[in-house]
Amino acid sequence: MFSKAAVLVAGSWGTALASVLADKGIQVSLWTRNEKQMDEINREHKNERFLPGISLSANIQATTDMKEAVSGAQAVIMVAPSSAVREVSRQLKQYWTKDMLVVHATKGFETESLKRISTVISEELGCQEGHIVVLSGPSHAEEVVKRCPTTVVVASLEEEQAKRAQDLFMNNFFRVYTNRDLVGVELAGALKNIIALGAGMSDGLGFGDNAKAALLTRGLAEITRIGVEMGANPLTFSGLAGIGDLVVTATSQHSRNWRAGSLLGQGKPLPEVLESMGMVVEGIRTTKAAHTMSEKYGVQMPIATQLYHVLFEDMPAKTAVEALMGRDRKTEMEVMSQETWEQWHT
Amino acid sequence: MFSKAAVLVAGSWGTALASVLADKGIQVSLWTRNEKQMDEINREHKNERFLPGISLSANIQATTDMKEAVSGAQAVIMVAPSSAVREVSRQLKQYWTKDMLVVHATKGFETESLKRISTVISEELGCQEGHIVVLSGPSHAEEVVKRCPTTVVVASLEEEQAKRAQDLFMNNFFRVYTNRDLVGVELAGALKNIIALGAGMSDGLGFGDNAKAALLTRGLAEITRIGVEMGANPLTFSGLAGIGDLVVTATSQHSRNWRAGSLLGQGKPLPEVLESMGMVVEGIRTTKAAHTMSEKYGVQMPIATQLYHVLFEDMPAKTAVEALMGRDRKTEMEVMSQETWEQWHT
Repeated sequence: MFSKAAVLVAGSWGTALASVLADKGIQVSLWTRNEKQMDEINREHKNERFLPGISLSANIQATTDMKEAVSGAQAVIMVAPSSAVREVSRQLKQYWTKDMLVVHATKGFETESLKRISTVISEELGCQEGHIVVLSGPSHAEEVVKRCPTTVVVASLEEEQAKRAQDLFMNNFFRVYTNRDLVGVELAGALKNIIALGAGMSDGLGFGDNAKAALLTRGLAEITRIGVEMGANPLTFSGLAGIGDLVVTATSQHSRNWRAGSLLGQGKPLPEVLESMGMVVEGIRTTKAAHTMSEKYGVQMPIATQLYHVLFEDMPAKTAVEALMGRDRKTEMEVMSQETWEQWHT
Repeated sequence: MFSKAAVLVAGSWGTALASVLADKGIQVSLWTRNEKQMDEINREHKNERFLPGISLSANIQATTDMKEAVSGAQAVIMVAPSSAVREVSRQLKQYWTKDMLVVHATKGFETESLKRISTVISEELGCQEGHIVVLSGPSHAEEVVKRCPTTVVVASLEEEQAKRAQDLFMNNFFRVYTNRDLVGVELAGALKNIIALGAGMSDGLGFGDNAKAALLTRGLAEITRIGVEMGANPLTFSGLAGIGDLVVTATSQHSRNWRAGSLLGQGKPLPEVLESMGMVVEGIRTTKAAHTMSEKYGVQMPIATQLYHVLFEDMPAKTAVEALMGRDRKTEMEVMSQETWEQWHT
């Protein structure tokens, strides 16, 4: 059913998803703007900057030509950084046809508009948002290319599109679940990066596993709260795109967001942290977005707010994490969500 | 308000909770059956077997005399292994008076009856179950004695008792939240050990962070499902006693359940694993309990069932974890709970 897929762009996650498809015998056209990277992938079957030490399948061919990438493909996988999604979608529009499945795997928001990624893509392609599928879940690229067992979730407003995406990706080591809650899966995937940053900061300060677990728990409650306000199903945040991805992002050395937080916790200034990472850290942009959303929707997001102070207002990380440990005595359900509690108790 | 507390018994968690109280100037009487341990605590202020390298407060005095431990105390903290709770409660009964607060921190069930710990204690003391408070949450003893920031939850059917327990334990580094869902907090604390065992097994097999995150997510859904069937609030499983404790137990080297699982994953037989641990591994007993409960309540618990096969029916760990990665295509909400999903969508 799927013989060719286009993957835009050739970062670590894009290349890993290309590998999953290539493993199933699908011809993958991996689009990149970087000619050197194209040559490396086509001649040496490697993408050293993003996936060092990994041999790629010969079914993956890179190109800098969007037309060549997309022509004849039955599916387009969008894995551009959140800041580039609109522009890449605009380029895609010229060659995209309505019968092509569109799956995106970008975890973030458009910076200024705070729009979700599927909204941005559908606006540029001129199609219904229901046409777009989001793929998310606990999935380090480094493990996926090594065929370690991995589970992800695909969500779409149109169930049929989510099922097509399940067919496209599912194999023995890469299990794909469907979900109807597009909004929840997109929000969980984006917002969990904030909590991973905070967890890294706590680790960088040497606060220990107990403190990190508290941050993750209260962080999950916080992103669920804003998610529900924006139309998500709270259960999605307890699923693969929420708690699953949060655990893997906040407890693993592979995670850029955790690493960036850890360096900040050790007292490194933000510009130095960004420079040493060498890749996009979506959680930093997302913190800014969440801070704005928290005010817009009138939802308290204490972790996002403290991180905002650290990232953009020079508050020391230690002060922020100590403030999060709080002072006043509370019931757990106040922290979680009084309204949700009451839905279960009245 | 609290000048003396009795802690039964002197394992790692009992000793750590004794330290929290001693830090607040409370005289703690730590009851143990072991005279050598008593002498070590009283003369050297150490409990080397359970908390190596830690100096204990002089406010902690050990005794093998239950009467001496309990007399004059305003609070009794029960931290016996699940298999010993009934017998210790029976001994306590002779000296216990109704004005004494009773807090337990044991994560498990009574093996044969499958009763919750607060039920067992209240039966033996001859009091209402509402009198009993459970303390749970992400809290490695090793970090608590070093005053690392830690959050826990105390739950009781009588709100007043939970508030007394909050007053008793709360300090600057040990934050205590209250919760009214005694059943949920007890079930979450006990059942999460099964999932931590499974996560350790996956790590022992070298399956990676993606697989572990999937196990944790699906494990949380599984223990929430049986918990709700037994009268718990599902939100409790997303709180400190559920996901918080699960994360800390499944991702940390300190955790006995994770370590036992990891050894099993490496192919070590159960008797050898038990011997090398040298301490009680509650998750192993709890797996047996959960297997029975799953049949009794007609709730599918795939992870507990596969672990039961490994622990008690000689199934290789690899076979079990592979079976958990499953075969058939599902929606995420089927895995989580169709009924709960529908409560949110109709």
